[in-house]
Amino acid sequence: MAESTSAPEQDQRLAKGARSRASIARRAADLASVEGLTGLSIGRLAIDLGISKSGIATLFGTKEALQVAAVKSAREAFIERVIAPAMTEPGGLTRLRALMDRWFDHITDPTFPGGCFRVATIAEFDSKPGHVRDVIAEDHADWLTFLAEQIRHAQDEGHLNGRTPEAVAFELDALLSAANTAQQMGDDRGVTTARAIVDGLLA
Amino acid sequence: MAESTSAPEQDQRLAKGARSRASIARRAADLASVEGLTGLSIGRLAIDLGISKSGIATLFGTKEALQVAAVKSAREAFIERVIAPAMTEPGGLTRLRALMDRWFDHITDPTFPGGCFRVATIAEFDSKPGHVRDVIAEDHADWLTFLAEQIRHAQDEGHLNGRTPEAVAFELDALLSAANTAQQMGDDRGVTTARAIVDGLLA
Repeated sequence: MAESTSAPEQDQRLAKGARSRASIARRAADLASVEGLTGLSIGRLAIDLGISKSGIATLFGTKEALQVAAVKSAREAFIERVIAPAMTEPGGLTRLRALMDRWFDHITDPTFPGGCFRVATIAEFDSKPGHVRDVIAEDHADWLTFLAEQIRHAQDEGHLNGRTPEAVAFELDALLSAANTAQQMGDDRGVTTARAIVDGLLA
Repeated sequence: MAESTSAPEQDQRLAKGARSRASIARRAADLASVEGLTGLSIGRLAIDLGISKSGIATLFGTKEALQVAAVKSAREAFIERVIAPAMTEPGGLTRLRALMDRWFDHITDPTFPGGCFRVATIAEFDSKPGHVRDVIAEDHADWLTFLAEQIRHAQDEGHLNGRTPEAVAFELDALLSAANTAQQMGDDRGVTTARAIVDGLLA
């Protein structure tokens, strides 16, 4: 930091940097949802956002760091869109149903232009070991663990018994992922079918 | 065709061309299962196979034609590995179970180095309209239709009733796709969980 910079000026600059970083990461997630994380390029992102390539390079350093930032930005967007609103509902079957409603909304009115970011990037990176895959895997594992917890609460109320929460979480995730794929392929029936199966499971 | 070429020579040359084409398309499918169809390049494939770039270009013309040939080659490999052996079983629940066994084998002992080609390429192309996506979508639709037919035969025997064959096909496809993803991400529990759910559905 330059010695001539006062503390409030530094704070402002840091805050501005953090905002820029967040908005670039979010735009990177939008692009990656369509083109894939591998297709991300600092150059293209710079043109797309009308800012300098060196500005992005200064904030992120490497392409891998940009990819990881995109994954984390998508994770935040999913939490905001799907998880946070459902958390205002009481734990148990009510919250689980609210989660499903929000998750289906996230698919039918996509948060990202290329549909569910998680589904797209897991398929892209599942055979590419490395840091990006680890971050994607961790996000997916966290989501399945969270989902299983909500299922456990519903089981405590006497619902969804006879199966492990992990098996129900796996099944819900499989169905919603397939619904997202069908929707992105232009087939509305996937969402209708998945919705009916999920409603049956949570009846 | 050169006038100096005799008919048997022409036949041999055509047969050789068809074999080359098939083996190049199959290698392209192997590579695409890991790197994606977008990552395919005629140049890289030429280095990989130790043949000339112009040789591949002559056989396929464009990158898109090579991508489509890879999709068709993967489709043939899936038919050979999963569908054909199950067709020797009597139609109905027995054949449906044989199909599931073969499909799980295709996931746990992957036909392609990057796991299920269909799962990987649907996710890659679902937001990229065009000829390649159309061919991928058609292959997926054919598979779901075939699966629904087998479920219908099982229903005719008195099994799996109370749901449409299309809904059961969607669910099986969702579960096996999720099992493939988990397996590729290094998590064996996905296959075990999916297997138990499928066994329950087909009990």
